[in-house]
Amino acid sequence: MQDTPKGSRLHIAIFGRRNAGKSSLINALTNQDIALVSNIPGTTTDPVYKAMEILPVGPVMIIDTAGIDDVGELGALRVEKTMQVLNKTDLAVVVIEPAAGLTEYEQNIVSEVQKRKIPLVGVINKIDQFNVSVDLIKKWNEGLGLNLLPISAKTRQGIEELKRLIITSAPEEWEGTPIIGDLIDPGDTVVLVVPIDLAAPKGRLILPQVQTIRDILDHDACSVVVKERELKEALENLHRKPRLVVTDSQEFLKVAADTPDDVLLTSFSILMARHKGDLETLTAGARAIDKLKPHDKVLIAEGCTHHRQADDIGRVKIPRWLRQTVGGELEFDWVSGGSFPSDLSQYQLIVHCGACMLNRREMLYRLSVAREKQVPIVNYGLLIAHVHGILRRALSPFPLAQMLLDE
Amino acid sequence: MQDTPKGSRLHIAIFGRRNAGKSSLINALTNQDIALVSNIPGTTTDPVYKAMEILPVGPVMIIDTAGIDDVGELGALRVEKTMQVLNKTDLAVVVIEPAAGLTEYEQNIVSEVQKRKIPLVGVINKIDQFNVSVDLIKKWNEGLGLNLLPISAKTRQGIEELKRLIITSAPEEWEGTPIIGDLIDPGDTVVLVVPIDLAAPKGRLILPQVQTIRDILDHDACSVVVKERELKEALENLHRKPRLVVTDSQEFLKVAADTPDDVLLTSFSILMARHKGDLETLTAGARAIDKLKPHDKVLIAEGCTHHRQADDIGRVKIPRWLRQTVGGELEFDWVSGGSFPSDLSQYQLIVHCGACMLNRREMLYRLSVAREKQVPIVNYGLLIAHVHGILRRALSPFPLAQMLLDE
Repeated sequence: MQDTPKGSRLHIAIFGRRNAGKSSLINALTNQDIALVSNIPGTTTDPVYKAMEILPVGPVMIIDTAGIDDVGELGALRVEKTMQVLNKTDLAVVVIEPAAGLTEYEQNIVSEVQKRKIPLVGVINKIDQFNVSVDLIKKWNEGLGLNLLPISAKTRQGIEELKRLIITSAPEEWEGTPIIGDLIDPGDTVVLVVPIDLAAPKGRLILPQVQTIRDILDHDACSVVVKERELKEALENLHRKPRLVVTDSQEFLKVAADTPDDVLLTSFSILMARHKGDLETLTAGARAIDKLKPHDKVLIAEGCTHHRQADDIGRVKIPRWLRQTVGGELEFDWVSGGSFPSDLSQYQLIVHCGACMLNRREMLYRLSVAREKQVPIVNYGLLIAHVHGILRRALSPFPLAQMLLDE
Repeated sequence: MQDTPKGSRLHIAIFGRRNAGKSSLINALTNQDIALVSNIPGTTTDPVYKAMEILPVGPVMIIDTAGIDDVGELGALRVEKTMQVLNKTDLAVVVIEPAAGLTEYEQNIVSEVQKRKIPLVGVINKIDQFNVSVDLIKKWNEGLGLNLLPISAKTRQGIEELKRLIITSAPEEWEGTPIIGDLIDPGDTVVLVVPIDLAAPKGRLILPQVQTIRDILDHDACSVVVKERELKEALENLHRKPRLVVTDSQEFLKVAADTPDDVLLTSFSILMARHKGDLETLTAGARAIDKLKPHDKVLIAEGCTHHRQADDIGRVKIPRWLRQTVGGELEFDWVSGGSFPSDLSQYQLIVHCGACMLNRREMLYRLSVAREKQVPIVNYGLLIAHVHGILRRALSPFPLAQMLLDE
C-alpha cells in the first residue's frame, strides 16, 4: 500500500490544540498503535505526513500537525506552517478538547479552512472523560458554523461515524485507489480475460473492463484483451511475461489453470473492490464465510437492478455456493439499487456486488455501516474466489490483504 | 466483400410477376450490369441468392425469385418456394408492372409477407413507359395497404428513394457490416492504438474503441490496446505479427511510421465508416477533395454536440487542412446533432464525423441523401488520411475501396 501514488491518497489534516488527543485520534482511525500516544510535548515543529490506511476509506495521507498546535508554534511561524499544510489538504479535521473548549485557535483554523473551501469535519474528543452538555455543543456549533461530532478516540465511541463523515465530506474529485495503475510500471503488459457470455452487454464491454483498459493506458502500459479460450495462445504470443493477468471472476478456475504460477493473477471484481471500497474489509468478510452456520441470515446487496439471468449470480449461484459451503440451509434477503438497510444486526454476512453502478463514496458508506454493526461484508469477486479455493491466488498482487488470510 | 458473413447481409427478396422488371431493378439497385437483363423466361425454378453491394446500404443478399413468379411456377410448388424464400427474408420488395396492374399474385405475396411481419416495400416499375395516374396508385395502395413508390429501373428515376426506403424499413436488428470481425480469423491478434488526449472521456474509452475490442472478442481473436508511444514496444513484444493495426485517425502518421509495411493498417474512423455507412461512397468523397476550388461551399456535419476543444477537429483542424489543400478560402457551414439539411445542392463537399452517436440507419440515410443530390460525402477519418497522404495505406484492408483511388 505504500506504493499508492500520493495523488490518489486523500490528504487529511488533523488540527487541534496540545492535549486535544490528535495522536490518539489518528491511531483510532487507522486501528494502529504504532504511533506512540503521549502527553509529552513533541520536539518536531514541522507537520508530519503519514501514509496510512483507514478502513474502509482506503489509502490516506494523515497530516499530523502536532508541531504547529497552539503550544508548538507561536504567531507568524504557526500561521505559515498552517498555510503550508492547508495547501495540501483535501479534508480537515478539527479536534476540540472539552476542558479548554472553543478557543481562538480552533476559530482561526476553521476560518482559514472555510476560506479555502476545504471540506471540514469537527469533533469533540474525550467524551469518555468529560460530560459535554447538549447546550455547550450547540453553542460551539454556532461559534464555528459546524456540526461537531462527539467522540472518544480512547473508547472508539463515534469513530465509525467519524469515518463516515470523512467519506461523505471528501471532495468529489477524490478518486482513491487507482484501479490498477499503482500495480504496474510503464511498458508493462497486462492480460485481461473477458468472457463473452449471455450477461455481456450487446456489442460492448462492461464498465470495469473499460475502466481497467483505460487505467492501463493512463499508466503507459499495454493491455492484451482476450477471451478465456484464447488466453493460452495469447500468453504464448508474448515475448515478455505479463505483469498481471486480470480475469472475470466466473472464469477464475480456467484462467488460473492457464496462467503460469509466477504470474500475478487477480479478478476485475477484486480490482474494483479495492478501487471502490477497501480490500482488507472485504477479505475479512470472505474469511467470515467459513464461520457461517446453517440457518444464519445473509444479505445479498446489488448496486443495480440488472436483468436477471436464469442462472443469476446473486439470486442463484451465490446462495447455492454458500449453502454448499455451510452444508445446510441459509436465510437470504436481497436488496438492490439505491437501497441498503441501516439495520444490519440480524445478518451474519453481507455479500455485495462489484458495485460497478455505485460510486466509491456510496460503497465506502456501505462498508462503514457494516463495520460499525460488526457484520462481515464480502463482495462477489472475493466470495467466488474463496468458495472455489482460489482467494489466495486472486490476492497475489495484494500482499497486505493476502496476509489477512493467515491471521 | 464476398467474405461478409451471410448473417450480416440484409436479405432482400424481390417479388414480381414475369416482365415486372425484377432483374432490371436489381441491376439499378446494385449499379451492376453483370446480370443480364432479359425478357426471355428463365429456366431455373429455384430462387437465386446473389451476394451484392448496394451503395450506401452495404452488403446485401438479393433473393431473385425469377423462377417462382406467376409464370415460372404454379400452384402448390410456387407457394412452397415462396415460403422457402420468406423464411430467409429480412425485407421484401414487391414490384408491380403497370400493364398488368394489381393481380392476385401481388396480393398473395403481400399478404404472406405481412403475416410474417417482414418489412415490405412496394414499387410500381416502368413509369418511363406507362403513365400511371394518381387515382390508380391510390387504388392499388388501398388494395395492398401499402404506399407504393413509382420508379423506373431503366431511367433510374426513384432508385435512390427506393434505397432510402430499404434503409428506413430494414429491421432494427439488422446490423450490416461488422466492425472488424470479417477482416480477421480466430486466433489473430489486432493491435489497437488509443491515444489519451484531452478529448478522451475521463476514465473511459470512446465507443468505437470499445465496440472494436468487443467485435474482436466475438470473433475469437485477441486485442492489444496501447497508446501510440508504446506501440513499437508492444509490436516487438509479439511473436506473431498482428493481422491488423487500427489507430485513432489523429495519430495515423506516427502509427504508420511504427507499423511494419507488411502489416495492414487502418483507423477506427474507417472501420466505423464501413460499419455505419459505406466505405466506397466515402472513398469517392475523399477523392472529391482534390476537385475543390477556392470559394466552394463545404458542409461539416457532426452527429453529436460534443464539448468543443480549442483545437476542435470539425471546427478548426478540418477547415484548416481543406484550405491548405485547396490553396485558398472555402465557405463552411456546420450542422450538428440530429439535424441534416435536405437541400445539399449548394455544397461541393460534405464532411461527416465518425457518426459514433448516430445509428447505422441514420448514417445510411444521410449518405443516400448526398448520393441523390450527387454531392460527394467523406468522413473525418478518410479526410484526415487523404490530406495526410496516407489514405491508400489506411484502406489497405479494403481492396475494393482502395481500387477507387486509381479510377
